[in-house]
Amino acid sequence: MAENTGVVFLGRNKVEVQSIDFPKMQNPAGKKINHGVILKVVSTNICGSDQHMVRGRTTAPTGMVLGHEITGEIIEAGSDVEYLKSGDLVTVPFNVACGRCITCREQQTGVCLNVNPGRAGGAYGYVDMGGWVGGQAEYVLVPYADFNLIKFPDKQQAMAKIKDLTMLSDILPTGFHGAVTAGVGVGSIVYVAGAGPVGLAAAASAQILGAAVVMIGDMIPERLKHAESVGFTPIDLTKSDNLGELIAAVVGKPEVDAAIDAVGFEARAQGKDGQEAPATVLNSLMSIVRAAGGIGIPGLYVTEDPGAADDAGKTGNLKMRFGLGWAKSHRFYTGQTPVLKHNRQLMQAILHDRLPIAKIVGATVIPLSQAADGYKAFDSGAAKKFVLDPHGLLA
Amino acid sequence: MAENTGVVFLGRNKVEVQSIDFPKMQNPAGKKINHGVILKVVSTNICGSDQHMVRGRTTAPTGMVLGHEITGEIIEAGSDVEYLKSGDLVTVPFNVACGRCITCREQQTGVCLNVNPGRAGGAYGYVDMGGWVGGQAEYVLVPYADFNLIKFPDKQQAMAKIKDLTMLSDILPTGFHGAVTAGVGVGSIVYVAGAGPVGLAAAASAQILGAAVVMIGDMIPERLKHAESVGFTPIDLTKSDNLGELIAAVVGKPEVDAAIDAVGFEARAQGKDGQEAPATVLNSLMSIVRAAGGIGIPGLYVTEDPGAADDAGKTGNLKMRFGLGWAKSHRFYTGQTPVLKHNRQLMQAILHDRLPIAKIVGATVIPLSQAADGYKAFDSGAAKKFVLDPHGLLA
Amino acid sequence: MAENTGVVFLGRNKVEVQSIDFPKMQNPAGKKINHGVILKVVSTNICGSDQHMVRGRTTAPTGMVLGHEITGEIIEAGSDVEYLKSGDLVTVPFNVACGRCITCREQQTGVCLNVNPGRAGGAYGYVDMGGWVGGQAEYVLVPYADFNLIKFPDKQQAMAKIKDLTMLSDILPTGFHGAVTAGVGVGSIVYVAGAGPVGLAAAASAQILGAAVVMIGDMIPERLKHAESVGFTPIDLTKSDNLGELIAAVVGKPEVDAAIDAVGFEARAQGKDGQEAPATVLNSLMSIVRAAGGIGIPGLYVTEDPGAADDAGKTGNLKMRFGLGWAKSHRFYTGQTPVLKHNRQLMQAILHDRLPIAKIVGATVIPLSQAADGYKAFDSGAAKKFVLDPHGLLA
Amino acid sequence: MAENTGVVFLGRNKVEVQSIDFPKMQNPAGKKINHGVILKVVSTNICGSDQHMVRGRTTAPTGMVLGHEITGEIIEAGSDVEYLKSGDLVTVPFNVACGRCITCREQQTGVCLNVNPGRAGGAYGYVDMGGWVGGQAEYVLVPYADFNLIKFPDKQQAMAKIKDLTMLSDILPTGFHGAVTAGVGVGSIVYVAGAGPVGLAAAASAQILGAAVVMIGDMIPERLKHAESVGFTPIDLTKSDNLGELIAAVVGKPEVDAAIDAVGFEARAQGKDGQEAPATVLNSLMSIVRAAGGIGIPGLYVTEDPGAADDAGKTGNLKMRFGLGWAKSHRFYTGQTPVLKHNRQLMQAILHDRLPIAKIVGATVIPLSQAADGYKAFDSGAAKKFVLDPHGLLA
Repeated sequence: MAENTGVVFLGRNKVEVQSIDFPKMQNPAGKKINHGVILKVVSTNICGSDQHMVRGRTTAPTGMVLGHEITGEIIEAGSDVEYLKSGDLVTVPFNVACGRCITCREQQTGVCLNVNPGRAGGAYGYVDMGGWVGGQAEYVLVPYADFNLIKFPDKQQAMAKIKDLTMLSDILPTGFHGAVTAGVGVGSIVYVAGAGPVGLAAAASAQILGAAVVMIGDMIPERLKHAESVGFTPIDLTKSDNLGELIAAVVGKPEVDAAIDAVGFEARAQGKDGQEAPATVLNSLMSIVRAAGGIGIPGLYVTEDPGAADDAGKTGNLKMRFGLGWAKSHRFYTGQTPVLKHNRQLMQAILHDRLPIAKIVGATVIPLSQAADGYKAFDSGAAKKFVLDPHGLLA
Repeated sequence: MAENTGVVFLGRNKVEVQSIDFPKMQNPAGKKINHGVILKVVSTNICGSDQHMVRGRTTAPTGMVLGHEITGEIIEAGSDVEYLKSGDLVTVPFNVACGRCITCREQQTGVCLNVNPGRAGGAYGYVDMGGWVGGQAEYVLVPYADFNLIKFPDKQQAMAKIKDLTMLSDILPTGFHGAVTAGVGVGSIVYVAGAGPVGLAAAASAQILGAAVVMIGDMIPERLKHAESVGFTPIDLTKSDNLGELIAAVVGKPEVDAAIDAVGFEARAQGKDGQEAPATVLNSLMSIVRAAGGIGIPGLYVTEDPGAADDAGKTGNLKMRFGLGWAKSHRFYTGQTPVLKHNRQLMQAILHDRLPIAKIVGATVIPLSQAADGYKAFDSGAAKKFVLDPHGLLA
Repeated sequence: MAENTGVVFLGRNKVEVQSIDFPKMQNPAGKKINHGVILKVVSTNICGSDQHMVRGRTTAPTGMVLGHEITGEIIEAGSDVEYLKSGDLVTVPFNVACGRCITCREQQTGVCLNVNPGRAGGAYGYVDMGGWVGGQAEYVLVPYADFNLIKFPDKQQAMAKIKDLTMLSDILPTGFHGAVTAGVGVGSIVYVAGAGPVGLAAAASAQILGAAVVMIGDMIPERLKHAESVGFTPIDLTKSDNLGELIAAVVGKPEVDAAIDAVGFEARAQGKDGQEAPATVLNSLMSIVRAAGGIGIPGLYVTEDPGAADDAGKTGNLKMRFGLGWAKSHRFYTGQTPVLKHNRQLMQAILHDRLPIAKIVGATVIPLSQAADGYKAFDSGAAKKFVLDPHGLLA
Repeated sequence: MAENTGVVFLGRNKVEVQSIDFPKMQNPAGKKINHGVILKVVSTNICGSDQHMVRGRTTAPTGMVLGHEITGEIIEAGSDVEYLKSGDLVTVPFNVACGRCITCREQQTGVCLNVNPGRAGGAYGYVDMGGWVGGQAEYVLVPYADFNLIKFPDKQQAMAKIKDLTMLSDILPTGFHGAVTAGVGVGSIVYVAGAGPVGLAAAASAQILGAAVVMIGDMIPERLKHAESVGFTPIDLTKSDNLGELIAAVVGKPEVDAAIDAVGFEARAQGKDGQEAPATVLNSLMSIVRAAGGIGIPGLYVTEDPGAADDAGKTGNLKMRFGLGWAKSHRFYTGQTPVLKHNRQLMQAILHDRLPIAKIVGATVIPLSQAADGYKAFDSGAAKKFVLDPHGLLA
């Protein structure tokens, strides 16, 4: 049991499954902790935000173990863990959170003040997020386990839906947070920018929140086709550089009630040969969201982007047409999703057959050993969400 | 065109379709108004709250024209109506509201301060609600038309869904308001007390709000059977006087996240031969709603009940086990639903095929002339929502 | 240091300061815990809800150590306590909360699911609240310390304002919660029922929330006089049994925007010789709160009241005129206040001289040894809030 | 009575009081209306947003009558006006709103859909806001009077506080909206950018909302001195280009809970010789607002700025360091303030002596005839809010 393997970042476009340390009950600073658990990882997904690192668009150091979308079984619990025990099957929010600081107490676990000396907010296996070891591995440590984890009430039932439940660690709550903060409600006309997994999760969230129409835009034909096959209205952004026109063709006017940016800073300009243009999604959303509407922004925007096309981009500066949003009284919600604010209710929805998220995001199980292929396929725009299966429990 | 017929209340258990006055552009005090429209009534439904009056449980005067659930076509518009015109097909909220007072400005149109000299809140054809003539008729006046009415964007499309859209005037928003104020959201476990039309509408609302489980309790077998047939989990209240037990049999514990009282003051005690017990629903809901949960109370509670079983009831006094709710930090929302707060978004949901409310409530079209039969059948507990068709447009 | 003394409940109207056990790092079930701290109690207040027990209106067992309003200095911290250390001066919310359950994560720490096997919600030294030892003592244990406690940023500054800061453990947040849940905001016309300490704290809270007018009603002349002296408009309930009339004499109409019940179940009917009438406050508040207004109910309502005047009261049944509230679309918020939701912001307000709560509630420091006298004086209606000073640090 | 004079915009830096048309009961398109009233203007203020036009930073046409901050007495009421009459003294929200469209019904009167053919939102005497004649005049028309106006309950009392109440038409609600949308509450540490009248109103609003500390930054010594004299903590932005440093000098850390941008697009870089830099305020606010904090943006950002320093600015493009806000989970609220959402409660606060806004903003009454001097003095940075007195009623 003292052996472990995991996905290691080795530099631009290079990841490899390697032997790594077995988790210890200690925090990244090396201090012993008693509130943690060690998990046998049951499933762990490749995320679009992992791609930002792998593509060299962040300052992620080589040697880092990746992976922040984790579901697992507890195999060891620290002495201060009171409400969980070995054998429990749990979902892990991607945010590492202490449950004891001001922001955690306010359910803002995405910006916990105690788990990352560098800034607010921690995560597993992610640059600038506190140094917590990633979970694309056989085993992983989860600190503050009583606070962070949710136990599935029935293990067998949960394993039967594991491809859905594995999405609770990040993309489903992230898409949901985008939809909620955009103000999506019953009867809303909604546009989601980006048909990758987070975009699809946002669309699914809009759907279960009661949206009347859910449109989803992208430039990759395979993604659009998939989005349509799972019930959303695809918007092919290569067809026009005028988003309003494309929206009007669906709902009769160039306007939506709410919009979600599931793309982030690596955006490309709309139209046939769109170049990278970090503010393009935000600007296009301001052009179509109705007066007094909301824009939810789960898509990642960074403070440093070494791979940016220009100097402004390198320091996270965007050319935003902010006056347009202002004239329409828009509101903008940003930031890492506080998963714990949403995951229990989403779990309930999955367990009671209301949210077939695995199908919607194209969950595709592969062995941990094939992680590198998964990264490559995902980067090329495959309409799939890769779920790694370190112990062959999902096969 | 100067002729009109409508459903007239003639005393306990007696209603009749009679010749009535054609609507005039004036308010109940006889003052001329220019902000009103006269509607040709396309559909108008019989409501459970009409039954309270017809059963003699209110101080409704005889001679009153009934009907507050109205959909119609504008045939005449006052000179101050700017955004509507003859020919428009519109949905009428059951609340009469001025759109100009403090509460209307706050979207609390259920308690408009200007349309009823007796108390806050007005309605068509209802006791103590300002004397506005009811709309179970061929023609009816709607004041403050620009504010109160919503025009269906496409008349033909609307007529094709008219049995659904007719529910926008009252029961759908009322059920929805109950669900929203109870705190129903994605993943909620919900219990609705009462499987009549408002209860079914509340259940449908919980569903579109993303509830994981929607249970609905009643004592009438036909209603329970119907509720089950449209997708809800029926709770047969004749089976036990312990609601928690019945709930636990479905979800594994005697507890729900949110509950909705769609019964009101004419409640009967649960169990085999339940007597009338006005607080029984509220007390049972406190017993099953979880700590920090909410209770939405669209079911009507009155200030005077001449037909009450005891003196306390006659003045609207209930024996509430309030300490139980207090111990669980419950919150209670009461009152007439402000329809305008919800009807546009619900209309969108219907028009985009997300809310088949006609089927869910058992919409059953009958001619206006058969209104009395409708009242009788509904009173006997038929699992139907009767829609009157004054001009034969729905047949 | 292994000695301790505390206020012990010895039966109806009898409390005594006795030698008690020094706190151990264990929960009431005797299980060792590492997340707790032992406090040297710097100040601990007598609360109106202690009086319910002492007056024999609850099922509190004799021998219980009382006290849930605690401020203290950490003298020992368990091994799982990471963000606090010996020497820190902290405020203790009266709610015992785990910080790890569903309701705690939602900031509903008043109904924590893990600290009380009997029901949701724990407290120190209180009947039915989990058996946690009270803090009207020299030393006390606080579990889940990182989560529950807030450290004062500057000890010396805090000691200079300790008579204000001691109110953060209960009555200030409780009054504030009442005001917030009643919907008090800038410009509100507010009525507070009860001019005891919680009522005064609710009035002070309404004030800092921006209320335009804050009225406070009672029947005890000394309390009314005190309320007036600290800036509120007193309403003498012995002058009339018609609350609306008394309100109208102040603001010109018998109506307020929001009302707070700071009395609870031991209410007496208004007027000259009012008898006990548990629903009287709630019913009178429904009569004066405007349409669509809110009622905050921090006043305690119980599920069992062995000392009630009638049988209905004994099981916590109230004769509520619920139909009146319903007709006005009232909303009702009940329950123990989740102190952690409010205490940090209230601390900031105190530290920056915005909230002179000690003066407002008549904070009166007495030695721990004189606790029994304090209970007696408070019970007789003294316009004072007694602060016990176990170690002579406040003198 | 058929004569009128008003302040007319005659091109860059040129305004003049001229004879203008007496108001007619018609909308800008020339259509007769019955819902309007004609006001004798009692007071009308010069606004910072008027300065944007006068300085040539907008596309405002010459010949336009200026003025959107209006208080007046009704001298004529249209036939559809039911709840107001001649002689009533009323406050006019700067937004023209119909009270009948979707956004007005949602209290979003800043983006009314019916009063401006060009875009959402109307105002008096303002470029691109629908062509409604301005109110820096003796007489003015107000449409949809029942909806838009609030009558002061007691005329004599109101005239005694008219210098305060005149701020209800715009800057007080605008500052308040900024504070509310920034999330200011009891105990907040707040920073307001800009010590002009809106900034001071935002600071006053933060105060009455219960803020613990209210800092206000500017580069004009007179404004800073005035801000300090009315109780706020001045931050002299010429002292450093590092805002966090200046904040830390006051509260001990470079961080606030909430911030309000009361500057807008004509911002200048902080420091000794700051050049115009439209995004500088927004970027600096992101640097100091704490994780999960809010930023309220009442300061105006435009879609076209003919006077901008560079091409990006001319089309309203800002160089925002959006990644910084994203990393801290910030939320941003923009847009014209919906005055009706706030003015009644603010009026109550003024009438009950809780909000001495005239003193706080330095209200300075001058005759209408001296309006041009007022514009000049205000533009030069005087710590005054000029109130025009067209009929000599305030002298």
